[in-house]
Amino acid sequence: MSEQTLWQAPVALAERLSHLRHQVWQANMDLQKHNLVTFTWGNVSGIDRESGLVVIKPSGVEYHQLSAENMVVVDLRGQVVEGTLNPSSDTATHLALYNHFPEIGGIVHTHSPQATAWAQAGRAIPALGTTHADYFYGQIACTRALSDIEIAQDYESNTGKVIIESIGDVGVMASPGILVKEHAPFTWGKNPNQAVHNAVVVEVVAGMALQTLQINADVHSINPALLDKHYLRKHGANAYYGQTNK
Amino acid sequence: MSEQTLWQAPVALAERLSHLRHQVWQANMDLQKHNLVTFTWGNVSGIDRESGLVVIKPSGVEYHQLSAENMVVVDLRGQVVEGTLNPSSDTATHLALYNHFPEIGGIVHTHSPQATAWAQAGRAIPALGTTHADYFYGQIACTRALSDIEIAQDYESNTGKVIIESIGDVGVMASPGILVKEHAPFTWGKNPNQAVHNAVVVEVVAGMALQTLQINADVHSINPALLDKHYLRKHGANAYYGQTNK
Amino acid sequence: MSEQTLWQAPVALAERLSHLRHQVWQANMDLQKHNLVTFTWGNVSGIDRESGLVVIKPSGVEYHQLSAENMVVVDLRGQVVEGTLNPSSDTATHLALYNHFPEIGGIVHTHSPQATAWAQAGRAIPALGTTHADYFYGQIACTRALSDIEIAQDYESNTGKVIIESIGDVGVMASPGILVKEHAPFTWGKNPNQAVHNAVVVEVVAGMALQTLQINADVHSINPALLDKHYLRKHGANAYYGQTNK
Amino acid sequence: MSEQTLWQAPVALAERLSHLRHQVWQANMDLQKHNLVTFTWGNVSGIDRESGLVVIKPSGVEYHQLSAENMVVVDLRGQVVEGTLNPSSDTATHLALYNHFPEIGGIVHTHSPQATAWAQAGRAIPALGTTHADYFYGQIACTRALSDIEIAQDYESNTGKVIIESIGDVGVMASPGILVKEHAPFTWGKNPNQAVHNAVVVEVVAGMALQTLQINADVHSINPALLDKHYLRKHGANAYYGQTNK
Repeated sequence: MSEQTLWQAPVALAERLSHLRHQVWQANMDLQKHNLVTFTWGNVSGIDRESGLVVIKPSGVEYHQLSAENMVVVDLRGQVVEGTLNPSSDTATHLALYNHFPEIGGIVHTHSPQATAWAQAGRAIPALGTTHADYFYGQIACTRALSDIEIAQDYESNTGKVIIESIGDVGVMASPGILVKEHAPFTWGKNPNQAVHNAVVVEVVAGMALQTLQINADVHSINPALLDKHYLRKHGANAYYGQTNK
Repeated sequence: MSEQTLWQAPVALAERLSHLRHQVWQANMDLQKHNLVTFTWGNVSGIDRESGLVVIKPSGVEYHQLSAENMVVVDLRGQVVEGTLNPSSDTATHLALYNHFPEIGGIVHTHSPQATAWAQAGRAIPALGTTHADYFYGQIACTRALSDIEIAQDYESNTGKVIIESIGDVGVMASPGILVKEHAPFTWGKNPNQAVHNAVVVEVVAGMALQTLQINADVHSINPALLDKHYLRKHGANAYYGQTNK
Repeated sequence: MSEQTLWQAPVALAERLSHLRHQVWQANMDLQKHNLVTFTWGNVSGIDRESGLVVIKPSGVEYHQLSAENMVVVDLRGQVVEGTLNPSSDTATHLALYNHFPEIGGIVHTHSPQATAWAQAGRAIPALGTTHADYFYGQIACTRALSDIEIAQDYESNTGKVIIESIGDVGVMASPGILVKEHAPFTWGKNPNQAVHNAVVVEVVAGMALQTLQINADVHSINPALLDKHYLRKHGANAYYGQTNK
Repeated sequence: MSEQTLWQAPVALAERLSHLRHQVWQANMDLQKHNLVTFTWGNVSGIDRESGLVVIKPSGVEYHQLSAENMVVVDLRGQVVEGTLNPSSDTATHLALYNHFPEIGGIVHTHSPQATAWAQAGRAIPALGTTHADYFYGQIACTRALSDIEIAQDYESNTGKVIIESIGDVGVMASPGILVKEHAPFTWGKNPNQAVHNAVVVEVVAGMALQTLQINADVHSINPALLDKHYLRKHGANAYYGQTNK
């Protein structure tokens, strides 16, 4: 709340948080719509950067019981600011990413089956075609395993730590998702909705990549020129995909 | 009905059985909702431990014809106590488990395709990630094959016998499901609903495990420290997943 | 119409055909409900044994345009007796089976994907578990390829001929379906509805069998004692599955 | 508009375009109905051959926001004639095909997962059974990779160019679809609806072919006599499938 004038801040913040609660609730429901979750195995959060407050799904609550009202608000150190339920058990992972990467506005964690299979296999998803290149500027990395100590102490924060370690030179927004080894995918975006979008992409691309290898075990990664072309026609300075240049 | 006073028991039992009939019917319907059954290839039961009465699906009746009223009530020796239909042909397997394991409150049997493939392959599902570790404290075992004599005589009871033989040191509730070789999965829980929940988990985990091996045939089982962490954060004395510690 | 008295026959036949038209139409619609067909790639027929008349789906008509009224009636030589549309292009295959096997009352042909993959691979589906054994008393056979001459002349009749050749010693009703090499499955039953049921079984079992081999390439066929047990507890003289012995 | 009399042309063209807009919109919606698209990853166009005007989906617009009215009309050089939105980023690929093949009346591009896996693998889909032979008179080809220069300059036109190069001797209408290497499938037909139909066929056949190879890695392509029989009974001069000869 650092840069607001005193008499405006409370109203503006309340409105922004109300809007963000709704966005985060909607994004959580969309996980189910896109068949990314079984039971409660997924969570979405979003951040209000001005106040540093994060809205996140409560832990272990079924999707049909979720509402904008029972989303939990925490600050960037993990203190609950609003809400009577426990926040997601993965909250510390979300916070580690928000604290490290100011570009991120929304985060998703799921156990979507095909992406999880790659995470369990401990393998990055290679960029094998334009579907992948339309969203990820290179492979979808897989983290190293956590050490026993990292698991025993601050496990969820350390999950964020190994994700941060694995972000490559292309930058966090040009590779908006990762596989945590022996666990499952995390994705992000500039807002919760975009993070969900990227969670769908990771799941679809994971399935295509496995089938591609089953057809041709010797396949190579996509021609870098084609990777550039597809990534940049959607995300580059001269992007011409969609209606954004109108 | 051993420990009830004479004038209270009949009413209380009738109410409990009515409630259990509804639970078991609902749990059977949920098998269909979760895409675990084709036709009538699945059944759920639940037990009222105080009376030792078991409510179970009738044999070979289609799901849309099921109701709380046509569930069959049997005692722990398999005698039909209430109901005009035959109980599930697998009733003796359910009873063997209820008789041996007093912790179990509900049992599910399905032929869900991915778990059945592992059962047909005669292979335990290894614990390859946290999705598995959130519910099963180690591999999902596969029984030995039944002998020809065990098949010819009391086949369904003997199916229960080989399940009981295969429960490892972690205990029946920390590994709430098993694969019967050349057959299909059985799962259980403290009530029928939890048994269905675990049937879904086994199916999802079975599919993920096959895909994991297809991506990386040399994959190892999950780090035991991570298995502990995930199982115990949901099921241990200091569990902090969900809202149960509130 | 051989054994009816002269003044009763026309009425009774009309009623039976009307009933059969409805059954066959419903069975065709059920192919779609069970996700066995893409577009018009499937057909069901049923026979009135007393008159020797067969009701079959018209060729290439979309499912939402089908009705009991536009089903086509043909005799056992393939002459259209009622109806203004062409009968299914596979009619001669259906007739070959009805003519050869008096036990059959309904026939289904689909290109359901997993069963079709086995047919294209030219491999019988081995009996790997009880799901299979509950319906098929041994493997689901795959025919030999048709010769060039058999393809050029009376192709659809010859498809029936190679199916008939491949029915093994267990008999046509104990193995109620087959894979036609490089083509797709045909199934049958005592009526159209049972033939559809068996088409679902073949598709599900085909998928399970492929996954089983992917988990364990050295798997053996099911223990014959277990095959017997499961087949006979549903279909034997002393069957005790379901409510039929009530 | 070459061969119309002056006073009729405007009215007739307006009516034809209005009809084509509706067809193209419906065909785009059908991509979703047939589960061929994730998000906006697909597009359909149709051409009015008399005027040389092409109706195509706008770029990056979600399916629920599409209408006949917001389809974009372009001429065969790619100039927007009607519409306020950007046309699909793949428009130049569509135009290359319309310009080269006068038989084509509708074109579809999707990233349907199983066909895309074959494209990413860089492999043609072999003709392994009659499902394939009912629509494609031989394999479904895969293009060569584009060169770096072809990617950098006029990428979308050059995608059309490599498709044109890969059309074999059977002709463009007897092989109504292709895989673009490292990218995804394109299909076509005499109108937009038929192009969608062929997009479904490519996806289904792609999945069947992978499973066939997993069951039998040594499988051969279909007997050419059987390929002929199935293709020609639907598409030959003496076709007898369906109701078209009535």
